[in-house]
Amino acid sequence: MKHPLQSGFTIGFLGAGQLARMSANTAFQYGMQVAVFSDRTENEPVQFMTPKSWSGTFSESDSMLEFAKACDVITLENEFIDSPVLSRLQKESGTPIYPSPDSFAMIENKLIEKQTFEGAGIPVTPYRLVKTEKDLNDFGEKFGWPYLLKSSKGGYDGYGNKTVKDPEGALKAFSNLGGNEGRDIIAEAFVDFTHELAVQVARNETGEVVYPVCETVQKHHICVAVKTPAPVSESVQKRVQELAMKATEAIDGKGIFAYEFFLTSGGEVLLNESAPRPHNSGHYSIEGCVTSQFENHVRAVCGLPLGDPSLTKPAAVMINLLGTHQRLSRVEFAEKSMREENGHLHIYGKLQSKPGRKMAHYTLLGDDVEEVYRKALDLTEMIEI
Amino acid sequence: MKHPLQSGFTIGFLGAGQLARMSANTAFQYGMQVAVFSDRTENEPVQFMTPKSWSGTFSESDSMLEFAKACDVITLENEFIDSPVLSRLQKESGTPIYPSPDSFAMIENKLIEKQTFEGAGIPVTPYRLVKTEKDLNDFGEKFGWPYLLKSSKGGYDGYGNKTVKDPEGALKAFSNLGGNEGRDIIAEAFVDFTHELAVQVARNETGEVVYPVCETVQKHHICVAVKTPAPVSESVQKRVQELAMKATEAIDGKGIFAYEFFLTSGGEVLLNESAPRPHNSGHYSIEGCVTSQFENHVRAVCGLPLGDPSLTKPAAVMINLLGTHQRLSRVEFAEKSMREENGHLHIYGKLQSKPGRKMAHYTLLGDDVEEVYRKALDLTEMIEI
Repeated sequence: MKHPLQSGFTIGFLGAGQLARMSANTAFQYGMQVAVFSDRTENEPVQFMTPKSWSGTFSESDSMLEFAKACDVITLENEFIDSPVLSRLQKESGTPIYPSPDSFAMIENKLIEKQTFEGAGIPVTPYRLVKTEKDLNDFGEKFGWPYLLKSSKGGYDGYGNKTVKDPEGALKAFSNLGGNEGRDIIAEAFVDFTHELAVQVARNETGEVVYPVCETVQKHHICVAVKTPAPVSESVQKRVQELAMKATEAIDGKGIFAYEFFLTSGGEVLLNESAPRPHNSGHYSIEGCVTSQFENHVRAVCGLPLGDPSLTKPAAVMINLLGTHQRLSRVEFAEKSMREENGHLHIYGKLQSKPGRKMAHYTLLGDDVEEVYRKALDLTEMIEI
Repeated sequence: MKHPLQSGFTIGFLGAGQLARMSANTAFQYGMQVAVFSDRTENEPVQFMTPKSWSGTFSESDSMLEFAKACDVITLENEFIDSPVLSRLQKESGTPIYPSPDSFAMIENKLIEKQTFEGAGIPVTPYRLVKTEKDLNDFGEKFGWPYLLKSSKGGYDGYGNKTVKDPEGALKAFSNLGGNEGRDIIAEAFVDFTHELAVQVARNETGEVVYPVCETVQKHHICVAVKTPAPVSESVQKRVQELAMKATEAIDGKGIFAYEFFLTSGGEVLLNESAPRPHNSGHYSIEGCVTSQFENHVRAVCGLPLGDPSLTKPAAVMINLLGTHQRLSRVEFAEKSMREENGHLHIYGKLQSKPGRKMAHYTLLGDDVEEVYRKALDLTEMIEI
């Protein structure tokens, strides 16, 4: 690979959304050039940030190969591509992809992911691959109703998931999620948890760093806020960080990785989901940490030394600003939040807003996490997008 | 003007160097799109950051007009353009330019700038417009040899300046600087100073903020380092901040402005130079202040509320990383600086390096400014570019 701090070094993103956008911003800090391959028809955030832009589907194509050949390294911002496509893209273009296709293959769908981490001795939420009506009923009998059905690929923010309450509902959801068309569906038990926790790990051949543990606040399966540090004991924080590093090592991960955990009412820590990319739970790190998840994403995939993930202030809170209207995006009534000392507004540059779409976020730093959280909610509640 | 936080809002930069690049990065934070007009033939830093790119000379042209029409607001990153060109561009395109052509006209060359600020009651270094051999000699007699001759337009980093020691040298320098071809040349007395200080001011219709006062360390007329806060008394810092705000108000400035001052051995504060744009002396503010000069640049020209310019740590030091070789740019031996907690490397993405060219900078934060300065020098002394 070309030296990453050399003239014209180009980092390519598969995916053109806000995660790639914020990583691209860091790539610019290091003098790099940015290339993007988008699978969307709408103009996407990163496409406005570079003249080097391609689009198409996330399957093999001349267009994707041309993109890959224009890059010195390629990385991902989502899990919607299949590892064999990545492997062949890497081979045919000669451009390295990180996280590597081999790492990605170990977590690319929810079933494989659970098996990988379970195999590495990391406690995961109880699950089964379900194929038949009997499997659906057996799972409910064993782990209790209701439980969750999840499509093994392509789910996010509650899409591709369904809570099922009884055998009839389970059968219907199984079909709706594509279970009858050969898609792997997994059943997952509801966990009686007190906190949902998340953490990010950056790793490459120069070393490994782990971010502070945060708490994610969810509403209708969408993360609406993140509080750092999480209001849990130091030993739980340490346990979460250790499991996250162990998980990253289990897949020989090179890049930035995020892990979501449940802290059960019994005090147990269970791995729920992982992501081989920057994650919504780490957006606070742009101002909240010495080195953001996006900066360490770029550093990690380029083989550069990793930066310090420590907090810059005792507390950091991130509020997701979801679309409030179906309209061309326009962030209104944000002045108060912009005037606030230590308040930081980030807008993703999506042209179209719709209710619930992730359009922007707001980070507020301070001393006491609960106080900062209340203040951040107050500063953002009037914002319309 | 379109609402700046609205879909597709485009900020245009006249000039495509590192100052525009770092402001553009902030524009991306606010979801904006970026357009650029460059007067250079080489591919310049911002041209890699957007598909909306034009080039040509800084005079009237169809290309510049097309650029202007693609923007919702236009701003500058240097003083190499003439205010009548800006005025007509604004009128013909209908796109507002900030700082406004009227503000720019009051400081666009060194003679007019001195007259403007002197007229506003701000103490400036002694100067005269020189037109003849007699003027050159009279100035030396009155203010002493050696003194400085400066081309009134287009000078920066020691270019366009010449120290003259005697009447013969003065005549030669006058000719070399273009004095015989009708260019305004000013003579400026050497000031016996103890510190060179700088400060930035952001201002628009929503308010005005002033940054901490820093000390610039110069070597061969090029700034090599910036220390914040400047090691001078609080009353001097206050005086500098007040004069800088007064200067910004005198030109009804909307945007970000930088001012360089001499603190004389007699304790007097004299305005030396101003710049209607982000400035090398403010690069430390990216990590060193809650809101960087680049972010307040974008906020100011877009009419958004200004952000807090306070320091994030007690001390911030910026080291300019100048080209060390004539070669394609490649930043080497920077690993140590990247590993350092609170150390931040910024590379400008210029393709070609040459000795002395501004290629990158490094900011280190800490508690004691002299200690941080020594550490930053130590961390960067091996870097080759």
